[in-house]
Amino acid sequence: MNRELFAAGERLVSPAYVRQGCEARRSHEHLMRLLLEKGKCPEDGWDESTLELFLHELAVMDSNNFLGNCGVGEREGRVASALVARRHYRFIHGIGRSGDISAVQPKAAGSSLLNKITNSLVLDIIKLAGVHTVTSCFVVPMATGMSLTLCFLTLRHRRPKAKYIIWPRIDQKSCFKSMITAGFEPVVIENILEGDELRTDLKAVEAKVQELGPDHVLCVHSTTSCFAPRVPDRLEELAVICANYGIPHIVNNAYGVQSSKCMHLIQQGARVGRIDAFVQSLDKNFMVPVGGAIIAGFNDSFIQEISKMYPGRASASPSLDVLITLLSLGSNGYKKLLKERKEMFSYLSNQLKKLSEAYNERLLHTPHNPISLAMTLRTLDKHCSRAVTQLGSMLFTRQVSGARVVPLGSMQTVSGYTFRGFMSHTNNYPCAYLNAASAIGMKTQDVDLFIKRLDKCLKTVKKEQNKESDISGVDNNDKTEDVDIEEMALKLDNVCLDTCQDSS
Amino acid sequence: MNRELFAAGERLVSPAYVRQGCEARRSHEHLMRLLLEKGKCPEDGWDESTLELFLHELAVMDSNNFLGNCGVGEREGRVASALVARRHYRFIHGIGRSGDISAVQPKAAGSSLLNKITNSLVLDIIKLAGVHTVTSCFVVPMATGMSLTLCFLTLRHRRPKAKYIIWPRIDQKSCFKSMITAGFEPVVIENILEGDELRTDLKAVEAKVQELGPDHVLCVHSTTSCFAPRVPDRLEELAVICANYGIPHIVNNAYGVQSSKCMHLIQQGARVGRIDAFVQSLDKNFMVPVGGAIIAGFNDSFIQEISKMYPGRASASPSLDVLITLLSLGSNGYKKLLKERKEMFSYLSNQLKKLSEAYNERLLHTPHNPISLAMTLRTLDKHCSRAVTQLGSMLFTRQVSGARVVPLGSMQTVSGYTFRGFMSHTNNYPCAYLNAASAIGMKTQDVDLFIKRLDKCLKTVKKEQNKESDISGVDNNDKTEDVDIEEMALKLDNVCLDTCQDSS
Amino acid sequence: MNRELFAAGERLVSPAYVRQGCEARRSHEHLMRLLLEKGKCPEDGWDESTLELFLHELAVMDSNNFLGNCGVGEREGRVASALVARRHYRFIHGIGRSGDISAVQPKAAGSSLLNKITNSLVLDIIKLAGVHTVTSCFVVPMATGMSLTLCFLTLRHRRPKAKYIIWPRIDQKSCFKSMITAGFEPVVIENILEGDELRTDLKAVEAKVQELGPDHVLCVHSTTSCFAPRVPDRLEELAVICANYGIPHIVNNAYGVQSSKCMHLIQQGARVGRIDAFVQSLDKNFMVPVGGAIIAGFNDSFIQEISKMYPGRASASPSLDVLITLLSLGSNGYKKLLKERKEMFSYLSNQLKKLSEAYNERLLHTPHNPISLAMTLRTLDKHCSRAVTQLGSMLFTRQVSGARVVPLGSMQTVSGYTFRGFMSHTNNYPCAYLNAASAIGMKTQDVDLFIKRLDKCLKTVKKEQNKESDISGVDNNDKTEDVDIEEMALKLDNVCLDTCQDSS
Amino acid sequence: MNRELFAAGERLVSPAYVRQGCEARRSHEHLMRLLLEKGKCPEDGWDESTLELFLHELAVMDSNNFLGNCGVGEREGRVASALVARRHYRFIHGIGRSGDISAVQPKAAGSSLLNKITNSLVLDIIKLAGVHTVTSCFVVPMATGMSLTLCFLTLRHRRPKAKYIIWPRIDQKSCFKSMITAGFEPVVIENILEGDELRTDLKAVEAKVQELGPDHVLCVHSTTSCFAPRVPDRLEELAVICANYGIPHIVNNAYGVQSSKCMHLIQQGARVGRIDAFVQSLDKNFMVPVGGAIIAGFNDSFIQEISKMYPGRASASPSLDVLITLLSLGSNGYKKLLKERKEMFSYLSNQLKKLSEAYNERLLHTPHNPISLAMTLRTLDKHCSRAVTQLGSMLFTRQVSGARVVPLGSMQTVSGYTFRGFMSHTNNYPCAYLNAASAIGMKTQDVDLFIKRLDKCLKTVKKEQNKESDISGVDNNDKTEDVDIEEMALKLDNVCLDTCQDSS
Repeated sequence: MNRELFAAGERLVSPAYVRQGCEARRSHEHLMRLLLEKGKCPEDGWDESTLELFLHELAVMDSNNFLGNCGVGEREGRVASALVARRHYRFIHGIGRSGDISAVQPKAAGSSLLNKITNSLVLDIIKLAGVHTVTSCFVVPMATGMSLTLCFLTLRHRRPKAKYIIWPRIDQKSCFKSMITAGFEPVVIENILEGDELRTDLKAVEAKVQELGPDHVLCVHSTTSCFAPRVPDRLEELAVICANYGIPHIVNNAYGVQSSKCMHLIQQGARVGRIDAFVQSLDKNFMVPVGGAIIAGFNDSFIQEISKMYPGRASASPSLDVLITLLSLGSNGYKKLLKERKEMFSYLSNQLKKLSEAYNERLLHTPHNPISLAMTLRTLDKHCSRAVTQLGSMLFTRQVSGARVVPLGSMQTVSGYTFRGFMSHTNNYPCAYLNAASAIGMKTQDVDLFIKRLDKCLKTVKKEQNKESDISGVDNNDKTEDVDIEEMALKLDNVCLDTCQDSS
Repeated sequence: MNRELFAAGERLVSPAYVRQGCEARRSHEHLMRLLLEKGKCPEDGWDESTLELFLHELAVMDSNNFLGNCGVGEREGRVASALVARRHYRFIHGIGRSGDISAVQPKAAGSSLLNKITNSLVLDIIKLAGVHTVTSCFVVPMATGMSLTLCFLTLRHRRPKAKYIIWPRIDQKSCFKSMITAGFEPVVIENILEGDELRTDLKAVEAKVQELGPDHVLCVHSTTSCFAPRVPDRLEELAVICANYGIPHIVNNAYGVQSSKCMHLIQQGARVGRIDAFVQSLDKNFMVPVGGAIIAGFNDSFIQEISKMYPGRASASPSLDVLITLLSLGSNGYKKLLKERKEMFSYLSNQLKKLSEAYNERLLHTPHNPISLAMTLRTLDKHCSRAVTQLGSMLFTRQVSGARVVPLGSMQTVSGYTFRGFMSHTNNYPCAYLNAASAIGMKTQDVDLFIKRLDKCLKTVKKEQNKESDISGVDNNDKTEDVDIEEMALKLDNVCLDTCQDSS
Repeated sequence: MNRELFAAGERLVSPAYVRQGCEARRSHEHLMRLLLEKGKCPEDGWDESTLELFLHELAVMDSNNFLGNCGVGEREGRVASALVARRHYRFIHGIGRSGDISAVQPKAAGSSLLNKITNSLVLDIIKLAGVHTVTSCFVVPMATGMSLTLCFLTLRHRRPKAKYIIWPRIDQKSCFKSMITAGFEPVVIENILEGDELRTDLKAVEAKVQELGPDHVLCVHSTTSCFAPRVPDRLEELAVICANYGIPHIVNNAYGVQSSKCMHLIQQGARVGRIDAFVQSLDKNFMVPVGGAIIAGFNDSFIQEISKMYPGRASASPSLDVLITLLSLGSNGYKKLLKERKEMFSYLSNQLKKLSEAYNERLLHTPHNPISLAMTLRTLDKHCSRAVTQLGSMLFTRQVSGARVVPLGSMQTVSGYTFRGFMSHTNNYPCAYLNAASAIGMKTQDVDLFIKRLDKCLKTVKKEQNKESDISGVDNNDKTEDVDIEEMALKLDNVCLDTCQDSS
Repeated sequence: MNRELFAAGERLVSPAYVRQGCEARRSHEHLMRLLLEKGKCPEDGWDESTLELFLHELAVMDSNNFLGNCGVGEREGRVASALVARRHYRFIHGIGRSGDISAVQPKAAGSSLLNKITNSLVLDIIKLAGVHTVTSCFVVPMATGMSLTLCFLTLRHRRPKAKYIIWPRIDQKSCFKSMITAGFEPVVIENILEGDELRTDLKAVEAKVQELGPDHVLCVHSTTSCFAPRVPDRLEELAVICANYGIPHIVNNAYGVQSSKCMHLIQQGARVGRIDAFVQSLDKNFMVPVGGAIIAGFNDSFIQEISKMYPGRASASPSLDVLITLLSLGSNGYKKLLKERKEMFSYLSNQLKKLSEAYNERLLHTPHNPISLAMTLRTLDKHCSRAVTQLGSMLFTRQVSGARVVPLGSMQTVSGYTFRGFMSHTNNYPCAYLNAASAIGMKTQDVDLFIKRLDKCLKTVKKEQNKESDISGVDNNDKTEDVDIEEMALKLDNVCLDTCQDSS
């Protein structure tokens, strides 16, 4: 409300009250101004009232919301459904221009501001999360895999001779396909088993670079966040190799923002060697819907080059989600989530250790993996490998989501490449196992329910295997609580065997 | 509500009323069932009540909305902000799986259904709009340009030797960049001037194919919807050339779904020759926010191949928007929009003709372009080419969006390629001109305001050019109405000269 | 957004675009300022964007939305549920103060403004609808009946000796109870049959005044809108009697704002005689949810006295609903609705006439009733009075709502008073009949469906009555369309006989 | 979703996933069924997903949401504005029928269920809060004052001779006006000073009953929640007097549900004597917007009599708010709020005590008041009574809401009755004071900010009074934090002196 409006209001209602209301509005505006000026995530989260006012203020700056606008182009931000307009807060023009996803749109000053501010906030958070020297980033409305593809496509123009991407193996399809889609040939570097952990084979990487010739290598494509017993790649050493041979280095940091360890690896890699870009998922790190990623790096012009590679406009939806989320949380709120995740990791780790020992299994020792854990399923697998699969299916029907059983020796062909021991990141891992992860937003209740249901499933499977079994689980007393889920699950068990292996 | 619920309700409220309520619910369910069974757009649009009930029903099938779910994975559909959850109707898991954007997700049966149904509805509408023999399509949460890139990347695997894309020139950046981003070399085929129209040079295309060798050509990349005086490419003939030489054919049908002529061209091309895929924007054809496209074709397996090329999950947001929109409109509603657009095209054409003649200009004769019109700016340009640019700037500040002035001889370099006469689709168009288009959703009011404001701007520019000018516009009587916009615009005119050329 | 905010924005995005956005915001503000300054309903409705911005602006002026507020009172506008806060646009403090429902609240300048503006808009609309000389009104969050009670309670303090309210009979319970609840004794004046119409017996009214003595009469309580064959009271003559005897006159104008005839009667009554207050429903006249009324009059101080009678604060919800509705419609939108209602009345009248004649019945001739119509059910009633009731029940189960069958001779006791011929406004109306009304918002489709379903029901009832019946309805060709409803209804028919008489 | 829908879904998506989704839906339905069957507040709050599904299920049972409905009545639940429809979740018909606010509506089975369930939940919560033997209650969309009026109007019919209401003085206007509006003569019983507390003068009550004659007394109208130093009335003894003389007893329990002490008083009163009805505010006890109250009692037929007194339908909005709130909180959530309020009361009490002592004032000793506190303002008042008013004004401009200064000797006339010492509940309280309350939903932050700002204000006022003053406040170190509010307030101080006394 501007002065004239307040003056009009004062004729209807006591001036003292109206002026106080007017001053109160200034507190909201003060927060908005700070945001626009500093471009940093506010420490304390905004309340919904400020947030919606801000979005409203931005939206009225877009031409589709001009009261006097007349549109005679082919794209005027017209919306057929009021439901759709509302759910997008009337931001219709998306972000970017034909030339550049980070560019400003003449028809949409508000959406352009939204885009700039979001990228600025996200940069602030990446610093806060541990990569202090990051200089540039942008949100792109594509998942991690397609964003990696965009990075590779950008590098193609810089390295016309390159055909290969060197890739320490990680058994996750979209990661692999991101290279295929970009038209390159992945050179798979098998991992080394160190204790229980699967780690980067640095010598093999360097040997491969020499063998292929640095100019024929588009880049090294490494990974931080991954399922145990694989652990984050040795980023520092890889970064040094890349620097030495003049090879770009792209890091898949899919859900690594939530872990200070992953972020530290990137920071260190960039300090001692070469990291050209690191890519992270929005949904997995910021608790927003699937569909966006952040491409970040240490060199403005390279990051801009990538943003200019995206041909055409793009959805503002992921940017809007992360903007709302970060403004609601504030940096303090986000830090709190990071802290809780770490605590939950310890808790899950302890509980899983206890349970596994009760069943003569063990928690794999994977201290370098800060997010994912693995528990062996040796005794299950010994009798019959189908039992491992069955366990996965049972967990699914009991509404345990995200747990992942990895049987031995499964074989899979992805885009023409055959992987032995698929899902386990290596050809022959010593045993079958089950994964569980502590991701941002997890609650104690998730852990407790998981442990209880896993216990029940293990018991059932074992009983079937061995009628004279006398093993007993850890926490069988309170059978009552979870009865509904169990009952329902029994009905479904038969139809679900095929769906037990939910790789991400 | 199920039977038990209704029974409980009957104890509180008269059974007769509750049963009637129960029956009433069945009418909503009946519509949903028809949709799921037939997969077609309902003839009459649904009301919001049915629509929201349907979305709610789907959403509770996703694991993040299970009351008893416990998540121990790295991606569990957790949402930090209630505002964000609500605006996505609690669909958090996106669409697709790592391997395939059209695949079903175990964690998200509801989102998977949403995805399937949306693709099915969209296919139905494409048929209805004129491409009757289309067999397969999918919505992808990327704009048209990136979607074209994805098509090209898919073709690469089929045609390993190919380096070139043959492209009848159209001056639109994202269209050109889609080829560059995919890593191919565009081979620009200049258009031929026929009367006022710029049309495909078929002989040059065929000659180029022969010169490069069919195997080295990835595909022909043609365009339907475009700014006059360029007109849609001669698709039939191009399709025949492609068939003859065994070259794939990808059509950029950006905003062509709204025009029966564009759709007819595609239908005919596919009938007599070869069209592998045609790509269209969601926002430009369905009045939804920017950010999605439809990739469609006549061969299921090729379209699936493209969908499998997208690495990783993707945002469900564009699919949700178009689903809501089509269910709200119904096929009858969409047909009505198409009909109105056609009528508005005639109206705009007539009005612009009258105005141009009043200023000794003329409407270019471009009968093959069903959407865009062009009016010459000869007299303006004669004195000073800056006047053309100034007109664009003035229209912008008067809240005329989408009008586009094209001065002579502008030169632009895009991704290393230099285009003479950029924006005019040819090196030397005979005159400067101004574009206006009749796109879906346009209203009479848009046309009237545009004509009035254009008239004023032309008058002002002319006066400045010629102090003793005696030209008068068509409709100067009611100066009053539009006074606010004019006043505001005068203030802004000075700062906006740089922003006058809003190419899409 | 204020200047500082825009300045900050200009550093991120081109100043030209930001300034244009800034100017665009001023167009929204311009509308708000006009509203605050003039207090009149805008001619053209506002779009949602302006409306929500306005509500947001008001809401931030309430102390519960102050960012720095600390509350140490017993009522601080705290809200437990975010859903609840949002649905009220964060207006939590309601309207009014302990002393007066129209008073300004120190804690809630925004809600106070909302209240003032709503009352001002509503006053404007009442004038527009025909009562040009109304001077004062306010919205009260109580239905018509309770609002009438409040008027009577206010009059009590002015007329300590009065015990009676003179009331020309209208068979509507809440109307009657409004007097009982206020603690007065209704003196029922039976209506006179003139042709088919039931009209006010003026002589009986005057005789009663003389008999009881003017000082013992609290007021005359007359009615405009009512079910045919009763017609609006003779307001002019009643107003003259009231003026002559110094008796207050309260008019129940429940759904009369939608009819220019009802409004004209009030205007004339006030001109030639005495009308102290007239009360109308919000929902029935403005298409908002049930729960509010408007108390209006020609004397500021009396209307204020009523508003001061309401002890304590009150819900702002009905005011908010009518504010949103009127701003969305604009006065032009409201006038259009009034015009359409009138047309629909003619249409309904014609269709019902045709149908009734096909069944040897007739439409009662009630030219003074501008809203409600009645069709005789003589032939039905002749055989068996249960058939009339059965018809009502059948219409109910076929989702015809609001149709009302009136059998002969029903007797009902309300608050100790026994009415013969209840529902028909008279002891012995000559025949049974069925009512239908053309109320604001009715569509052609409503009329058509009603006529079709009524036709079917009549046919069914007649067949049952007379197995050799040969009567046929008007429009039997397209039996197909309405099949679903019919099928459903057949199932329900047996359970619903008890619910056939939906008096309002 | 019913079986047919799921079957249709299974053809599109894996049956295993669809069935799991189907089972998941049953968990939501299970909660709804429990609610409908038991009519109790669930222990754990529902999540928004279940809540909105439930509201949606109810809404589709109302005839205005029937897809095949045709309306020919005068009230058909039509809504002009989509915003309005949505904010009411499409419940348009309100609650109740002409005869009875608790009655079931034929046109609106869903709204009727909503009404029944809400009343049932609220009854459950009243029991939980301490009145275990309550048997009946209903929500009414009127504030406490008007609801009390309705009770008095109901009693009128039972006690035709009664003219007086005996009312132990409490200085709150709407409370007093509720009797005036109902047309009765309040007989004010002055309170007795016991220590610092003002308590019921039981002897005076009994003497008055005898003096007027029990038959001439409509009822005793007592109060629980009130501003210190007044304390809740001696309900037990009053209830016994009422029982002895056969006089009804109506309790104003405005914001007493939040205090176990107030609720206990009512429970005891009903046990040992007579309480006919007790009335409480919705907003003050359940953190919903202003506008509703609960009328509760121990005798079903009397409570029904009151509900039948309300003439006509009523707004469902307050019922909907409290339903959403209670289902969101669950009984555990509500209990938690009650517990926190109690703790906050202790904290506020301690902090206020410390502060008062620092200024040579003291906290009044009012152990019987469980919600409100009072701190003396002797030293302020000694010099100049205007200083007390000024303090109130200063607190207002510093965004302290709800604090209330009570100067000595203010005189006020309400509806013709003059009160000496108005606001202090007695003619001559020994000193001026300031009130603060710990109400439900208060946070530590509220207390801390209040104490800090009060400290500053007191210091400022004292300085002005006494230039050589050497008093220093308790907590002056961190001046920084609250600077914005202070700065803003200084600007406003001059205009706000008139608004310092915000009585509720």
